[in-house]
Order: sequence, then structure tokens, then C-alpha cells
Amino acid sequence: MYSFKEIQEIVENQLSQMQIIKEPEQLYRPIQYTLESGGKRVRPAFVLMGCNLFRDNITDAYFPAIALEMFHNFTLLHDDIMDNSTVRRGKPTVHEKWNSNSAILSGDAMSIKAYELLSEYSGDNFREIIRLFNKTALDVCEGQQMDMNFENMKIVSENEYLKMIELKTAALLAGSIKIGALIGGADENNAQRLFEFGKFLGLSFQLQDDYLDLFGDPEIFGKKIGGDIVSNKKTYLLIKAIERADEEDRKKIQALIEMTDYEPEEKISRAKVFFDKYSVANITAEKIREYNELAKRYFEDVTVEKKRKKPLLEVAGMLMNREK
Amino acid sequence: MYSFKEIQEIVENQLSQMQIIKEPEQLYRPIQYTLESGGKRVRPAFVLMGCNLFRDNITDAYFPAIALEMFHNFTLLHDDIMDNSTVRRGKPTVHEKWNSNSAILSGDAMSIKAYELLSEYSGDNFREIIRLFNKTALDVCEGQQMDMNFENMKIVSENEYLKMIELKTAALLAGSIKIGALIGGADENNAQRLFEFGKFLGLSFQLQDDYLDLFGDPEIFGKKIGGDIVSNKKTYLLIKAIERADEEDRKKIQALIEMTDYEPEEKISRAKVFFDKYSVANITAEKIREYNELAKRYFEDVTVEKKRKKPLLEVAGMLMNREK
Repeated sequence: MYSFKEIQEIVENQLSQMQIIKEPEQLYRPIQYTLESGGKRVRPAFVLMGCNLFRDNITDAYFPAIALEMFHNFTLLHDDIMDNSTVRRGKPTVHEKWNSNSAILSGDAMSIKAYELLSEYSGDNFREIIRLFNKTALDVCEGQQMDMNFENMKIVSENEYLKMIELKTAALLAGSIKIGALIGGADENNAQRLFEFGKFLGLSFQLQDDYLDLFGDPEIFGKKIGGDIVSNKKTYLLIKAIERADEEDRKKIQALIEMTDYEPEEKISRAKVFFDKYSVANITAEKIREYNELAKRYFEDVTVEKKRKKPLLEVAGMLMNREK
Repeated sequence: MYSFKEIQEIVENQLSQMQIIKEPEQLYRPIQYTLESGGKRVRPAFVLMGCNLFRDNITDAYFPAIALEMFHNFTLLHDDIMDNSTVRRGKPTVHEKWNSNSAILSGDAMSIKAYELLSEYSGDNFREIIRLFNKTALDVCEGQQMDMNFENMKIVSENEYLKMIELKTAALLAGSIKIGALIGGADENNAQRLFEFGKFLGLSFQLQDDYLDLFGDPEIFGKKIGGDIVSNKKTYLLIKAIERADEEDRKKIQALIEMTDYEPEEKISRAKVFFDKYSVANITAEKIREYNELAKRYFEDVTVEKKRKKPLLEVAGMLMNREK
């Protein structure tokens, strides 16, 4: 059994062994740049650890793991264009450093390279794996489209929001661990339990993101507190505040989030008054706990020896109790 | 054996049977719109006809054929963003009709849908097919990158140019017919001969595009004559003119193509003087003939009964002697 740290080392090692740069360099340099920007490599780790639950030798899962990391980074690259983001992981985004056309095309190449890496897998269930990957990849696009749609919607329901994060964030984590499990030889029941485990972890992860934006410890969180409020993002916090507010407050909240002439600090503190009044911190924390419990339950139901579960439980614990 | 016309009907029929629109509609409407814009459907036709060379029942190739059309339309969609094109096949491009973010994301979904369609194929050689598709898809991206690079280059060599069109245009035609052949049960030798046939047809097709831009019959060609000159595009004509010109003329040509304050008509007629002086029409026509001959030779070498080759020979003849 590999620990999470060992798994991360395998991922970094595989990534650095990949020969990415070739002609035309202008296509491949942004890909290398994006992959070198780091991150926790949770998705490839999930592929490898999902596999490791069921067998000791996980080399068959190396390329599929890197494929998932490649795909994830492709979505970040294109999302950054769509969101006009200029910085990612402390470095200029690709469309900032190069240009938008370069970011579009190198992103396209990354999504194809993800399939190229996946196609290195030669197990009997290759077709099943690739179909699951297709479904997952399309889910992520649908989630991103819903997220874009929300920008032009006055009211987003809780269900719409949860569906969006399920597609945009949770699907890829769920797909990663299920792919790993299937490569490892899991039966369909166990593979599906792990899918649900990954999905609820992903939902919890994203809600924590929303929560920490306003209620995180600024020194640990690393980002400016209240960024989502300043940029009028439809988060779980905001959706719950609007849903629970009386009519008068609802109008005030909606007027407030559309304001652009406030000082950021003032906008945040005014919003926080409503969020506190309607206890959205507690409500969100409760929802996070609910998802964490569901994730744990599905994980418990996976029929492998308890000791094999230890490393994944450790990662899950980390993801369930984020401080940043 | 199916005629080209029957094959085109199968393609249209398959395309219209596809249930594309689902939630979120904003993601899928641009896909439907793009696929409905028509075109000759040469790539899916090549998949089906490549298959039909080797067997009568070609239903196994239906989904892969549509996959190739989906992928081709994805590349057009993203290319149109990169080239700032506002019109395609007489209709507003997706980023014009919707917006650039929509075009990026729907394009991403199309490339995944191409894989989804390809993954409907269940033959024993599925992995071989998908790996060939990956390679082809990446070739197209590399070709597009080279084409973008050319915009910032003063001099492009003939070899660089031919490499670019081989990747950007010819690879997809070559890949399409080889995929069809492999689905039809062709051995590797025949499949590779058809790949070369498709490649040289593609090269010829693109050179004819360059040729017709200046020397086509305006009434048949359907586009404004000289568009490539007005937009400073590095075409085979221009590359040969610069290569063959004496030093004085070379400087004049290079100064001319960078000019933006000419009236289009004047710029075209001035460029044409040099193109005529250095016989680039003849030279290009000769290169086209050379590629057509190579395509024919590879096709002749395919070891199937002569009568099975008739429909593809007809299409090839059409592609080799374009007037528009």
C-alpha cells in the first residue's frame, strides 16, 4: 500500500518523465507550463489510490492517472480564459503570459493528450474506462456552462447550484477514483461506491471553498476574504441567504450584490450582516457535514480489507476538513 | 457498394438522428447549429467509403464517421475564434452569434463528443482506431499552431508550408479513410496505402484552395478573388513567388504584402504582376498534378477488386479537379 505522499511522488515523477515539448514548441510550451504549476494532484492520486485499494501493483494506472491530471489542467486553462482570470497558483495564466489564441489551442491539444495518455492503458476494460472518461469530461463541460449561465441569472436555486458543482467539480473526482478502481479490478458495485464517495467528497470540497471564502482564517486561507462577494459570485452562502431572507431583506441583498460602486470592504461587511442574520455559516457547515457523512458511508461499504483503506481515508480526512 | 451520393445521404441521416440538444441547452445549441451548417461531409464519407472498400455492411463505421465530422466541425469552430472569422458557410460563426466563451466551451464539448461517438465502435481493433484518431487530432492542432506562427514570420519556406497543410488539412482526410479501412478489415498495408492516398488528396485540395483564390473563376469560386492577398496570408503562391524572385522583386513583394493602406483591388493587381512574372500559377498547377498522381498511385496499389474502387475514384476525381 502506498501512502498519499508516496502516491504524490509517483505522480510528480510520471509528470516529469513525460516528454511534452516537441515541434511546434509554441503549442507545447504552455502545456508544460500549466502542468508544472503544481497543485495537490488529487485527481491522479485518486486514480492511483482507487487502483491500490484492489491491488498492490498499480503501474497499469500510471498513464490513466496522468491523463486525468492533463484533463483537469485543460479545463483550468480554458476556464481561465472564460473567467478572464489573470493569475493561477501565483503565476500568470496562459492567456496572460501568451495570448488567448494560444490558450485555446494548447488547451485543445491538452484534451487530446489526455486521451492519448488514457489510450496507453491496455486492460480488457479499456473501452469501459474510456466511456466513463467521456461521460465525466462532458459532465465537466456541462457544469462550466451552468456556472456561466448563473452569471446572467437573478435567482439560482439550491438544487441548480448543487447540480452545477456536482458536474463541474465533483464529477471529475468521482470519475477519477472509479477509473482507478476499475483498473484495479474492482467489481461494478465497489467501483460505484467509490464513485459516490468521490462525488460527495467533491461536493463537500466545493462547499468548503464557498465557506472559506467568507469564514476562513485569512492567514491560513491565503486568498483575500470575501472575494466571491466582491465579484458577485453565486455561491452556496449567497443562495441560502436569499432563499431564507424575508422579502425586504431579499431585495436588499439582491441590490447589494449588483452594486459595483461600493468599496470592496464595505460590500463584504454589508453582505456579512445578512449572512449572519440568516445563519448561512451554520447551514453551510451542516451541509458539508452531511456530504462528509455520505462520503464516509459509501467508503465504508467498499468490500476490501480495512487496512487497505487507510491511505484514502487519510486523504479524505484532509479534503473534508479544509482550512485552505 | 454505395455511391458517394448514397454515402452522403447516410451521413446526413445519421447526423439528423443524433439527439444533440439536452440540458444545459446553451452548451448544445451551438453544436447543433454548427453541424447543421452543411458542407460536403468529405471526412465521414471517407470513413464510410474506406470501410466499404473492404466489406458490404458498413454500419459499424456509422458512429466513427460521425465522430470525424464532429471533430472536424470542432476544429472549424475554434479556428474561427482564433482567426476572428465572422462568417462560415454563409452563416454567422458561433462566437459571432453567441459569444467567444460559448464558442470555446461548446467546441470543447464537441471534441469530447467526437470521442463519445468513436467509443460506440466495438470492434476488436478499437484501441488501434482510437490511437490513430488521437494522433490525427493532435496533428491538426500542430498544423493550426504552425499556421498561426506563420502570421508572425517574414519568410516561410516551401517545406514548412507543406508540412503545415499536411498537418492542418491532409492529416484528417488521411486519418478518416484509414480509420474506415481498418474498421472494414483492411490489413495494415492497404490501410497505410489509403492513408497516403488521403494525405496526397488533402495536400492537393489545399493547394487548389490557394490557386483558386487568385486564379479561379470568380463566378464559380463563390468567394472574392484575391482574398488571401488582401489578408496577407502566406499561401503556396506567395511563398513560391518570394522564393523565385530576384532580390529587388523580393523586397518589393514583401513590402507589398505588409501594406495595409492599399485599396484591395490595387494590392491584388500589384501582387499578380509578380505572380505572373514568376509563373507561380504554372508551378502550383504542376505541384497539384504531382500530388494527384501520387494519390492515384497509392490508390491503385490497394489490393481490392477494381469495381469496389469506383465510388472512391469518383470522389477523388472531384477533389482533384476543383473549380470551387
